Amino acid sequence: MSEPTHPLLPFPPLSLSASLVERCQELSSDTPIPGFLFAGVHAGIKRSSEALDVGLISCTSTATCAGVYTQNQVVAAPVTLSRRHLASTTQVRAVIVNSGNANACTGEGGDRDALLMANSVVDQLLESSTSLSAAHIQVASTGVIGAPLPIKKLTDAIPMVVSSLESSGLKRFATAIMTTDNRPKSRALKLNLKGVKGAGETTEVMIAGCSKGAGMIHPNMATMLSYLCTDAKVAADDLQKLWVEVCDHSFNAITIDGDTSTNDTALILASGESSPLEGSPLQDEALSLFIEATRALATALAVDILRDGEGVEHVAHLTVRGARTSTEARQVAETIALSPLVKTAMNGEDPNWGRIIAAVGRSGVEVDPSVITLCIGGEKIYDRGQWCGLEAEEVAHQAMCGAEYPIEVDLSLGVSDCTLYTTDLSAQYVRINADYRS
Amino acid sequence: MSEPTHPLLPFPPLSLSASLVERCQELSSDTPIPGFLFAGVHAGIKRSSEALDVGLISCTSTATCAGVYTQNQVVAAPVTLSRRHLASTTQVRAVIVNSGNANACTGEGGDRDALLMANSVVDQLLESSTSLSAAHIQVASTGVIGAPLPIKKLTDAIPMVVSSLESSGLKRFATAIMTTDNRPKSRALKLNLKGVKGAGETTEVMIAGCSKGAGMIHPNMATMLSYLCTDAKVAADDLQKLWVEVCDHSFNAITIDGDTSTNDTALILASGESSPLEGSPLQDEALSLFIEATRALATALAVDILRDGEGVEHVAHLTVRGARTSTEARQVAETIALSPLVKTAMNGEDPNWGRIIAAVGRSGVEVDPSVITLCIGGEKIYDRGQWCGLEAEEVAHQAMCGAEYPIEVDLSLGVSDCTLYTTDLSAQYVRINADYRS
Repeated sequence: MSEPTHPLLPFPPLSLSASLVERCQELSSDTPIPGFLFAGVHAGIKRSSEALDVGLISCTSTATCAGVYTQNQVVAAPVTLSRRHLASTTQVRAVIVNSGNANACTGEGGDRDALLMANSVVDQLLESSTSLSAAHIQVASTGVIGAPLPIKKLTDAIPMVVSSLESSGLKRFATAIMTTDNRPKSRALKLNLKGVKGAGETTEVMIAGCSKGAGMIHPNMATMLSYLCTDAKVAADDLQKLWVEVCDHSFNAITIDGDTSTNDTALILASGESSPLEGSPLQDEALSLFIEATRALATALAVDILRDGEGVEHVAHLTVRGARTSTEARQVAETIALSPLVKTAMNGEDPNWGRIIAAVGRSGVEVDPSVITLCIGGEKIYDRGQWCGLEAEEVAHQAMCGAEYPIEVDLSLGVSDCTLYTTDLSAQYVRINADYRS
Repeated sequence: MSEPTHPLLPFPPLSLSASLVERCQELSSDTPIPGFLFAGVHAGIKRSSEALDVGLISCTSTATCAGVYTQNQVVAAPVTLSRRHLASTTQVRAVIVNSGNANACTGEGGDRDALLMANSVVDQLLESSTSLSAAHIQVASTGVIGAPLPIKKLTDAIPMVVSSLESSGLKRFATAIMTTDNRPKSRALKLNLKGVKGAGETTEVMIAGCSKGAGMIHPNMATMLSYLCTDAKVAADDLQKLWVEVCDHSFNAITIDGDTSTNDTALILASGESSPLEGSPLQDEALSLFIEATRALATALAVDILRDGEGVEHVAHLTVRGARTSTEARQVAETIALSPLVKTAMNGEDPNWGRIIAAVGRSGVEVDPSVITLCIGGEKIYDRGQWCGLEAEEVAHQAMCGAEYPIEVDLSLGVSDCTLYTTDLSAQYVRINADYRS
């Protein structure tokens, strides 16, 4: 029996809501974004002789930052350090990331190395800024766990990475933070705020960002990293609040295999350069539009991780609606999204409603099986407890042959909903995650 | 790339605790067991022209019964009926099971058909017993979901299945209830109670049983069915209490893919024929030994399901100890046992402690990563937060090349523990569950 090698899923254009479509435009991710410079260099941490393995985001002054970190209790040294830095100040001057080594499970030496990474960036940037401390630096590492960070190679590379900073280097940065990713994932958009209430003197803001994926191959450990940069001016409190919400609907709404890594980090940096020096931060309708645009970009970058995931052949946009509460909606959605039987059915392009309904039934949420309705690819295949027949299944099967399609479950119990993004489970996924020794 | 077809895992001899080893002996599962007759026939429900698809357990008088049913809220008609029957009386006269059709998601017609199955057994057995009603019959169906039960074929087969009842027919019954199982799974033991406190005049009891497995291939829906029969005399209350506990440690302690089915049923039937007519039921030490022996048999039959599972190449006996409570121990164990990354590492025979420790970290139980210890195949590979080096990993890798091995996690927080049985995740599993249309 031979195994097909599947082509990678495409990265489709940004999906915009009705309120955004008039005001938003997707841009090349290398479009310069006021207030930020990016770089990616080869420091020799990865074995491959040319692979980029150190990335830097530098803010021309400091940017306001909000962060969401892994909830795993086993955390790598750079996560502990970055979390502490952000708790002490929301002003960030630079983000330094290496790939090829996760600096995880490395004990006290790991803590020391993470701090050394931050300090050597401070040393190198001090020329241009005098009141700079390690607390203004965010640090991340991704790659092999257990092995000590080759800290000398890394600190030796800092002058080079600083000197290669450029305004249109986001894609290069996105490449430098890759581990098992197949492609760099970066996107940008501009949002027109002309005449919008709460925009002040800001007429247009840009948001750009990148993500790296959730593929886990031992001896690498999965690290989902995501960075968004914007020239919008946003108050620190608003930024943290909106970022938690945006991440809930994007980076925390994707699942490949239910394993959260010890390094996951998602940051947003706001330079404020779209607004005059004394201009006020975004408010009211302008802030709402900004949140929506941020969410659209973050969701696209999150789903790009799935599209680039190990052995992924299909992505489902799974919505559970009609739940009593959003917690219950999420609980049902997670049970479906993580079911290996649902995921293998997706792989087989099989509208197997029995597996989905059985997952709903065991989710722990009290449901009434006789009122549940299920659509796949827009086709109703299970209607208030009754199977809709072979023809409906055939239509759903056709939709499931595509790269991406919706799965919608209506519990008919209330008005809350939840959308998660999930993938099929392929033989290829198993092979990648099992066969590293072969 | 070609895929190896793996040999089925062997069914090893019963594993007996120190207190049982002197008193217990494994027997052929076709050894007659006083009070029970078994049959399996071909009724034409399965397409294959010779496959057995209707099984019957008949009690020579009635037996005391205890049951554990699926906790899924979406349940098949026979489960609803059987649960109601057992709630109305603990006395059971027969168990009728068909394979090939699950009678699930079949609406009111399904309820009617389940009752018809029970009633036609009553009709056929009435000759020998006068005070018999449908409530004394337990019913189960397993196979295709959504399709109506071919009830005429089934009721037409009842006279044949009744007339072929025999004392040494357990293996034939076990074969008739198979769906995607590769082999029938049946076992028996005898327990010497001579001189044991609480045994009364009973000197020896037998326990025999069978199970069918958790493989789920659409259009079949997984149904785990397990039936134990014993000639011990046990009070109805004691039987229900011990059965819930035994199932927790056996049939509810195995996991292939975390999906519970809508049909799962586990029953124990006690004929009491090992004891004279007016003899008292087992008590004290005799009851404790009986519980232990039942647990040993049930655990073996449960793990046999994994050994016979779709694409299963390795079985791990996963113990989490040192937890604060047994609930927390189970929560950690389930997170590890269901992690696709841990399961693919098992498939790759890779002692990937990072994936196991990361699963512990995200289990939702508060842990201290710096005191966690992990052994695989008896070899310590992670000791109080520190990696034990390549040599230890190599020893663990060798153990993981075997069919079955222990994985032990010590949280060092308390004295509670939990043992679950889990399998690797193979490309073969995905293929079986995805490719039914090909």
